[in-house]
Amino acid sequence: MIGRLNHVAIAVTDMEAAARVYRDTLGATLSPPLAQPEHGVTVIFVELPNSKIELLEPLGADSPIAAFLARNPGGGIHHVCYEVDDILAARDRLAAAGARILGSGEPRIGAHGKPVLFLHPKDFLGTLVELEQA
Amino acid sequence: MIGRLNHVAIAVTDMEAAARVYRDTLGATLSPPLAQPEHGVTVIFVELPNSKIELLEPLGADSPIAAFLARNPGGGIHHVCYEVDDILAARDRLAAAGARILGSGEPRIGAHGKPVLFLHPKDFLGTLVELEQA
Repeated sequence: MIGRLNHVAIAVTDMEAAARVYRDTLGATLSPPLAQPEHGVTVIFVELPNSKIELLEPLGADSPIAAFLARNPGGGIHHVCYEVDDILAARDRLAAAGARILGSGEPRIGAHGKPVLFLHPKDFLGTLVELEQA
Repeated sequence: MIGRLNHVAIAVTDMEAAARVYRDTLGATLSPPLAQPEHGVTVIFVELPNSKIELLEPLGADSPIAAFLARNPGGGIHHVCYEVDDILAARDRLAAAGARILGSGEPRIGAHGKPVLFLHPKDFLGTLVELEQA
């Protein structure tokens, strides 16, 4: 069911410092920072030949990554995102298998303009999993 | 400098349960479990179209993932691995930039039979980074 590894998201407290690590120290190609107030984050995409790293910095008072950064003040890997061909069919299959879908259970439009869902880490080996419509 | 995202490693306490999550619930293709006593882990590779997930279970008394699992008993994302064309040149560039290389600083042969190094999480946004010779 799951397809490509669309991205790995890393939550950071200081986006300028994070950009320096990936651009200058690791020599990768970065997108400009993109504020996404509807998601409560500012995003930089690190473009790798086969996938992406998403650097996420909190934006606004109710950022969904604020609690994670309170637990991990130095930053850390926040989630992985897998592509699926049919996000509603994937959701229904997962729910039937007993997995918990976060939020309302209805896909939202994610950072790439496509429908996404998040799955409960306790049902996926302690890993927050995002599914994105391919 | 960094190239492909070779894999994302997820540490787990129960490999059979982890295999069920990725094979049965998420519908992915898995390798058979591979014991790697020299690395203190048993590995299953989850084959995705563009990259891999490595499921890691402790093997033996001194597993390098034991401390991580003591802190994260439900499992969690343990590291990301980026490919580099020249691992010694990469190491020297990183060391010159002030980044800490773990262990002796000399590459070891990793789970894929290629030279690897690990970088200190505190220098890379709270993320344990593995570099693998491409």
